[in-house]
Amino acid sequence: MSLNIVLIEPEIPNNTGNIGRLALASGSNLHLVKPFGFEISDSRLKRAGLDYWQHLNITYYDSIDDFFRINKNEKFALFSSHGKQSHWDIPFEDNLFLIFGKESVGLPKPLLEKHKEHLYKIPLYSEHIRSLNLANSVGIIVYEGLRQVKI
Amino acid sequence: MSLNIVLIEPEIPNNTGNIGRLALASGSNLHLVKPFGFEISDSRLKRAGLDYWQHLNITYYDSIDDFFRINKNEKFALFSSHGKQSHWDIPFEDNLFLIFGKESVGLPKPLLEKHKEHLYKIPLYSEHIRSLNLANSVGIIVYEGLRQVKI
Repeated sequence: MSLNIVLIEPEIPNNTGNIGRLALASGSNLHLVKPFGFEISDSRLKRAGLDYWQHLNITYYDSIDDFFRINKNEKFALFSSHGKQSHWDIPFEDNLFLIFGKESVGLPKPLLEKHKEHLYKIPLYSEHIRSLNLANSVGIIVYEGLRQVKI
Repeated sequence: MSLNIVLIEPEIPNNTGNIGRLALASGSNLHLVKPFGFEISDSRLKRAGLDYWQHLNITYYDSIDDFFRINKNEKFALFSSHGKQSHWDIPFEDNLFLIFGKESVGLPKPLLEKHKEHLYKIPLYSEHIRSLNLANSVGIIVYEGLRQVKI
């Protein structure tokens, strides 16, 4: 079983690096949708100590439209603080695509509306926190998926 | 129900910041054991945008010995890549202490030996990864605890 982690227009290189580590650790595929808020190059990756990056199964897309055109027959779960269902309620299955928006503003509104039946959130128990760090969110959700499907 | 997140001698300020956010979001208490690899001061926190820090329930300790002396009657789960049981097998309960070592080398060996019956790890499915980012690990474990106890 493997899951697909999709980052739509990620902004912070350190998050994408950590999420790459999570993808590899969890046996997930990584899908990165441009534009990025940083440059991915061999010299950059090397400098950042991301020596595991070469082992990742990554697909790059030029745009959100490209991503959805190429994967139009797949099943999706999208993440947003506007989600009504918790991530514990996701019916995980092999090859599910887990879609995360950019750090600053999340996923575009039209996308949330189009996929509102597959919109989830991580429950937060404090009024002082609006969201978790993106890499933290990915880790929590992917490992819940592994728990549901592997056990 | 609340859990306790314990960071033993954390080194990287960004991780401790993210873990503070996770503690608040999950309704957990944070325990920070000195020495730290950074300075925690009002001006630093403000500069790093950690405006939620004031809402955290934090206890500071001068040393590992101090931590265990003060909490000697509590129940512990310790995390290490040497753990034999997975974090999904932790019997979570109210007030459990989740103990994490420093980023570079993890928990001290004598501590692992003393608590070997309560040693857990997050399963990793790649030979190319030795560990996850510390904040990612905390998030995965704390939200598994919430799942077990809140539902």
